[in-house]
Amino acid sequence: MTENFDVAIIGTGSGNSLLTADYDRLKVAIIERDVFGGTCLNRGCIPTKMFVYAADVAETVRHSSRYGVDARLDTVRWNDIADRVFGRIDPIAAGGEDYRKSLDNVTVFNGEARFTGERTLEIRSADGSSRHIVADDIVLAAGASPRIPPIPGLSEIPYHTSDTVLRIRELPRSLIILGGGFVAAEMAHIFGSFGVDITIISRGTLLAREDEDISREFTRQYSDRFTTYLNADILEAAPGGDGTVRIDVRVDGERISVAAEALLVATGRTPASETLALDVAGVEVDAAGYVVTDKFLRTTVPGIWALGDITNPAQLKHTANAEARIVAHNLVHPDDLRAIDLWPIPHAVFAGPQIASVGLTEQELRRAGTRAYVTATHHYGDVAYGWAMEDTENFCKLIADAETRVLLGAHIIGPNASMLIQQLIQGMKFGQTVDEMARGMLYIHPALSELVENALLKL
Amino acid sequence: MTENFDVAIIGTGSGNSLLTADYDRLKVAIIERDVFGGTCLNRGCIPTKMFVYAADVAETVRHSSRYGVDARLDTVRWNDIADRVFGRIDPIAAGGEDYRKSLDNVTVFNGEARFTGERTLEIRSADGSSRHIVADDIVLAAGASPRIPPIPGLSEIPYHTSDTVLRIRELPRSLIILGGGFVAAEMAHIFGSFGVDITIISRGTLLAREDEDISREFTRQYSDRFTTYLNADILEAAPGGDGTVRIDVRVDGERISVAAEALLVATGRTPASETLALDVAGVEVDAAGYVVTDKFLRTTVPGIWALGDITNPAQLKHTANAEARIVAHNLVHPDDLRAIDLWPIPHAVFAGPQIASVGLTEQELRRAGTRAYVTATHHYGDVAYGWAMEDTENFCKLIADAETRVLLGAHIIGPNASMLIQQLIQGMKFGQTVDEMARGMLYIHPALSELVENALLKL
Repeated sequence: MTENFDVAIIGTGSGNSLLTADYDRLKVAIIERDVFGGTCLNRGCIPTKMFVYAADVAETVRHSSRYGVDARLDTVRWNDIADRVFGRIDPIAAGGEDYRKSLDNVTVFNGEARFTGERTLEIRSADGSSRHIVADDIVLAAGASPRIPPIPGLSEIPYHTSDTVLRIRELPRSLIILGGGFVAAEMAHIFGSFGVDITIISRGTLLAREDEDISREFTRQYSDRFTTYLNADILEAAPGGDGTVRIDVRVDGERISVAAEALLVATGRTPASETLALDVAGVEVDAAGYVVTDKFLRTTVPGIWALGDITNPAQLKHTANAEARIVAHNLVHPDDLRAIDLWPIPHAVFAGPQIASVGLTEQELRRAGTRAYVTATHHYGDVAYGWAMEDTENFCKLIADAETRVLLGAHIIGPNASMLIQQLIQGMKFGQTVDEMARGMLYIHPALSELVENALLKL
Repeated sequence: MTENFDVAIIGTGSGNSLLTADYDRLKVAIIERDVFGGTCLNRGCIPTKMFVYAADVAETVRHSSRYGVDARLDTVRWNDIADRVFGRIDPIAAGGEDYRKSLDNVTVFNGEARFTGERTLEIRSADGSSRHIVADDIVLAAGASPRIPPIPGLSEIPYHTSDTVLRIRELPRSLIILGGGFVAAEMAHIFGSFGVDITIISRGTLLAREDEDISREFTRQYSDRFTTYLNADILEAAPGGDGTVRIDVRVDGERISVAAEALLVATGRTPASETLALDVAGVEVDAAGYVVTDKFLRTTVPGIWALGDITNPAQLKHTANAEARIVAHNLVHPDDLRAIDLWPIPHAVFAGPQIASVGLTEQELRRAGTRAYVTATHHYGDVAYGWAMEDTENFCKLIADAETRVLLGAHIIGPNASMLIQQLIQGMKFGQTVDEMARGMLYIHPALSELVENALLKL
């Protein structure tokens, strides 16, 4: 039997937020193959930041003597942290699912969806049973999942991904992290702060997509803090002795074996498009598997929409939420379509140090070569609050159009970067010039925002 | 002998920053009765924030177990903190003075100035010697100093003010703080975090000039954290036993004696106008002693200018710096006068919790009764980063014009308030509506700026 719906939503992360009051009169199917609530709530942004905050606390204790405060770190109660985090999050996920199930017009399907026709889906449950539905509109919001690289031997040894590593019940003494992106950076900070001996193995430098100055400084700090093998060829994974795992790498022509109690694979993410059999519906994906959409977030098939990590390589919750608002409107207002406008997209990496960024990097501008730009860098150590922090490493780098004087990019490495950048996002969005932002308003002295003020003044 | 100058500047805080390139051709006298560099550098914003940062570190250690990180606070090395702070600051002050003294066109006078005529000053040195100068333009930038209230017995016992308390060489076991303003709040945080037993005695509530909700919550938190006697009549000060000091107060009709090893008087500040004999020059001051200026920062006497704490009750370095830029320009460009535009003036209190504020308070708006407004309050505990912080108390309160939808005031109590508010200052200054700021740009998820975003959305 095939059940009919007005709308079917595949994925319950930002997809779940589609159901505004407009949808009360529609018959809606929501399909989730994993835990209700999506990556951000269950495995991503929120739990990681809760662990990161505890990691920041541990690091503050560890470095407190720098400020004349002598303290000792006795224990990190990993299970208590995990229980606190998931004790808060898991009920939210469960409550969200229960709420949706309580609605008369919504049916929640727990299972994996795949297209069997342009508007028909088969949903297979974990128990092997299968149901078929038809929907007038279908929203692809199935997200993405960790990408597992084809490393010889990897499938024969135990390893974690960001989906599982925060749910372990005992901290390993040592952890190898494969990857150099934001997941690797945040996880190294979390586990390293909690006393785990970290080795990072990356095929390039760290956070290589950040502005080149930021990536260089971050790589330098992480190379001081952790054991790192950068620009490494990963040759093989194998069991080590005593239940450990072993990774063999080649760095600068030399073969090196690294062993640890645990392994985290953090080598990127793959959009969840493969399991959906999108080709059956005719939905186009790009070479990397991301669903192709137009500015109204329509896919190449009328009536099929997409949002979030399955369509946006940025893999950011705040863009997914903005996309969800657009789809929520457009789906029920076909004659009044709104275009998505995400520019400028900011992001942050909650590592130690923190990174925040918005707009273009200097290497992007140089490669494009189409506009004259000016840059300015100001260090935390050169503003009063940075003196208080005894910071000697971190900085704010700004890039502005040499002619129009508007910001093209802003990049911050250091404490509170994710907050400091918000006014620059605002300035970029509303077209304020560097000069207006620098001199047109007062900055509280001696707040850390003076870092931004001084970088603007330098421009 | 009377020496002639083009410009005489009384005070070396923001006054010292007047000397732009425009002044290279002028003969300048700079007069300082205290340490070169002013309150902010030597006794105010900068050293207090350096101590506050160490206090924040100590508090993080003390509360780390809340996050699953068990740590012990062994010692606070007060002298090491003080040596670090003043070891950085004092050379800057000395270097600033040496630099000015090295300039051919600048003469630095160490002494106390007072008018002996409309353009003539007598400068008395500490050694009792006296010099006389005449200047075409005179800038009053002498600042302010702690106000000592007329409490019976106070002059017979030892006490500290914000000028001296950070330079003590040994932490007292207990400290009475008289006052409920920002100095009292920050000093209680510093010394309390370092283990000193704090008693705050205030004639009203704490931070009573803040928005009423902020003041109420701050008072509540400080009443939990410290011993407080609020709405207290201070009756008498006297020596206690064993070298302690004793303060007698009446609270709710009851007379109470409070004793402690040390006393800090933090009951407000007085502009340094009295010692200048301004009446001789004819410079008008208001009832509280602040020098009266027009929008070009001219006093009532042509050729005499004023800026900073001597003219601005806000007692803020960032307004003083903005005023200095105006005077620096206007003094040498009499035909191209620039008006001061400080609106909106933000400020922060770096206490525990932190406070930041800009624009009007709700009680000011209610009293004025001239415009319809709407308010919204969002708690740290209701955004994801606040979950990570386990915050249950702090919040952001916004007030907007009900009609135009622009912000009238923003008030934040809680961690990082001084940074979070900067985007709201920017929005107010450049006329962005609440709706533009709320929905017109992306906020990084899950950065703490989502607190501001959600408060804006609620409006």
